[in-house]
Amino acid sequence: MRADAEAAYRKKTPRSRRLHAVSARLHVNGVHHNIRHFDPYPFVAVSARAQHITDADANRYTDYWMGHWSLILGHAPPAVRRAIAAQLGRGWMHGTVSKPSIELSEEIARSVRVAEKTRYVASGTEAVMYAARIARARTGRRVVAKVGGGWHGYASDLLKSVNWPYGSESRGVYGERNIVTIPHNDLEGSVRALRRVRRELACIVVEPLLGGGGCVPCSRDYMRGLQEFARSCGALLVLDEIVTGFRFRLGCLYPTMRLEPDIVTLGKIVGGGMPIGAMCGTDEAMSVANTSEFGRGSRSYVGGGTFSANPASMSAGLATLRALRSRASVYGRIGRLGEAARRGLERALDGRAVTTGMGSLFMAHFSAGGRPVRSAADAARCDTALLHRFHFEMIARDGIFFLPGKLGAVSAAHTPSDIRGLVGAAERFSAMLGRGGG
Amino acid sequence: MRADAEAAYRKKTPRSRRLHAVSARLHVNGVHHNIRHFDPYPFVAVSARAQHITDADANRYTDYWMGHWSLILGHAPPAVRRAIAAQLGRGWMHGTVSKPSIELSEEIARSVRVAEKTRYVASGTEAVMYAARIARARTGRRVVAKVGGGWHGYASDLLKSVNWPYGSESRGVYGERNIVTIPHNDLEGSVRALRRVRRELACIVVEPLLGGGGCVPCSRDYMRGLQEFARSCGALLVLDEIVTGFRFRLGCLYPTMRLEPDIVTLGKIVGGGMPIGAMCGTDEAMSVANTSEFGRGSRSYVGGGTFSANPASMSAGLATLRALRSRASVYGRIGRLGEAARRGLERALDGRAVTTGMGSLFMAHFSAGGRPVRSAADAARCDTALLHRFHFEMIARDGIFFLPGKLGAVSAAHTPSDIRGLVGAAERFSAMLGRGGG
Repeated sequence: MRADAEAAYRKKTPRSRRLHAVSARLHVNGVHHNIRHFDPYPFVAVSARAQHITDADANRYTDYWMGHWSLILGHAPPAVRRAIAAQLGRGWMHGTVSKPSIELSEEIARSVRVAEKTRYVASGTEAVMYAARIARARTGRRVVAKVGGGWHGYASDLLKSVNWPYGSESRGVYGERNIVTIPHNDLEGSVRALRRVRRELACIVVEPLLGGGGCVPCSRDYMRGLQEFARSCGALLVLDEIVTGFRFRLGCLYPTMRLEPDIVTLGKIVGGGMPIGAMCGTDEAMSVANTSEFGRGSRSYVGGGTFSANPASMSAGLATLRALRSRASVYGRIGRLGEAARRGLERALDGRAVTTGMGSLFMAHFSAGGRPVRSAADAARCDTALLHRFHFEMIARDGIFFLPGKLGAVSAAHTPSDIRGLVGAAERFSAMLGRGGG
Repeated sequence: MRADAEAAYRKKTPRSRRLHAVSARLHVNGVHHNIRHFDPYPFVAVSARAQHITDADANRYTDYWMGHWSLILGHAPPAVRRAIAAQLGRGWMHGTVSKPSIELSEEIARSVRVAEKTRYVASGTEAVMYAARIARARTGRRVVAKVGGGWHGYASDLLKSVNWPYGSESRGVYGERNIVTIPHNDLEGSVRALRRVRRELACIVVEPLLGGGGCVPCSRDYMRGLQEFARSCGALLVLDEIVTGFRFRLGCLYPTMRLEPDIVTLGKIVGGGMPIGAMCGTDEAMSVANTSEFGRGSRSYVGGGTFSANPASMSAGLATLRALRSRASVYGRIGRLGEAARRGLERALDGRAVTTGMGSLFMAHFSAGGRPVRSAADAARCDTALLHRFHFEMIARDGIFFLPGKLGAVSAAHTPSDIRGLVGAAERFSAMLGRGGG
């Protein structure tokens, strides 16, 4: 029962409870990202290494949240740690052009064809905001189309139709009429919505696999149909690969779908867990941001900021990508573990749930009657409260951490034994449900 | 002559020139923040320590740019470096509530009274974007008033009237009609502009000292007048102290002006040179962002993001603020060096220039007839091309680095001898101008 799990959690996390009370006094919601809160209070992390994160009460969890899925090599991998530590000796904030930014861009360009020009910023939120601005400046049009359930950060230019039922997300945002929502993996419905704004359409922004939106891959036909529509009316195709970039292969997901985007946004993995966002685009798409060529009347003025391309993030990202390049087998290995997690969870949850994802990303959905989950809307209509409960049970009883309700990510540090532990926890949860333990 | 300086610069920076050619191929403008470009090409930094930054050709510069003025203790101060290195061993990306974020907020709240609630984000751009959103959500109004020449980052909600003559800054930004510009340090003119929008005014956003806008402090009367106007019509006062917070004293500048803002944004120094932005506000102002209390129809949905409150930035900021607290004399010392720089530059430039700033921040302005610079507009109307040339001459000949056209910041690592070197360089520049060396 939920009450039992909560009692077990409270019993093992007294220090976290006290620290959280301080955090709640100092911080809105007690957290710094709304999704990091879960009831009764989130544990307070004090350290993390490899596949584990440890809280203030010395409870160790096998971590599938993995720093918002940014840590593909696990927590604090030695090669990346050494690279950051070495950079500390050379200074972590230069504020001018810095050598590691050149090296990281060379590394990215080796694997990401669209990265003819790259610009680093502080976060994914910033990267997609600037991508939309560039698209609007190039086309002279105002509308950004995004997928219902798609998550592109908190910038006012993209903040709409994230949570089910898709609509406004916030007061105090005044550009919502410039954001048009299209239905995920429904090409016909999307084209219908896009046709209504085709003369005003600056770009279509889409994740090839919806991360926050339920770990649901876009179909190739859907993506190619969106690209075709964008081309047909002179709009740009912006792919948000902040979650998917370097997650499944050395590079982006889009070439496997035979896409040719104008701009791709990256983040997470390419920063090795240090703060980063990146816009990668064709020379043609990015040129409008060149302030040496374009004056105030014609340029797209994009950041940049104090921390853009800071040497600490650049070094961490570079060490991460080099490690991935030198261990190409890692993708196969974590992909197989992800597949084992998907199969194991479906088996253990015994008809109550289906799974989504691909490669090292996976997610269970408590879907009535085992209805398949083929879109973000399908995922949103599953029993998300039960998913939260499943995740919380594992935090409370099994020493396994998913951010409740969110997808899981396998890292290079995870082992087959970790996946067996996860499947065992799912079996126990399933048995409890079978006993009517609701 | 400019041509001589450029030849000298090219001669001593061949490796930077080659690296910059690579950077220009990979990056828009060859940089990651538009202001980091200067002609013929910016040097490429490879390391920095204390008051020095070293380029790819092993040229060492006394640095007054100091990482966008974020490094008040100098580059790579040992105490901060140790703190970050120790954090690396405990993981640099936890993705859940993390202990150092609580400690940093406690430290900030000790010195910043308005920080009843704090939220960390990835950058100053994000912090001010969210502050404006909170103000709009609380008031139900659309207009953000900002000062002409004020710089609050690249977010679409604030991007207007930054560069002289103040107007639109970018194509592809659709919220400009919601941004109203008021004239800096001109209370009468500001109130006139504000009155026209008082029913739609959500907040006034202002830096107590304009950083990018020419290092010009706001007068106390101006600030108090703006506060009074905001109070009179139910708008919020948002102070952007990203440059000024912990720069002149342990805390913000606003108490010295007897102000009571609703929200203050911080960045730079409070992150110790690692990526950070922060919103600090009263419980009352910040409560609308609490998603546990407010649902989608009534909340202000603010970030957060993957990197919010990441342990690396938190640890660096905490170590920096603790170092400042334990060495309270540092403010007096760097303030005196700043004053020596202002006096020395005015003397050396011999009537050609006036200086602005306060404490450890200073800037020279080539002002016709020694006209005083009392506002951002005054600063913008000075001979900025000559200022660029002065700064470039020092880069080329004197081993002194200001980002051309930008203010200088003294850090705890600078010495009286550094300031004498700066004044000497100004004397040589002045003499060259006197000989007609234009």
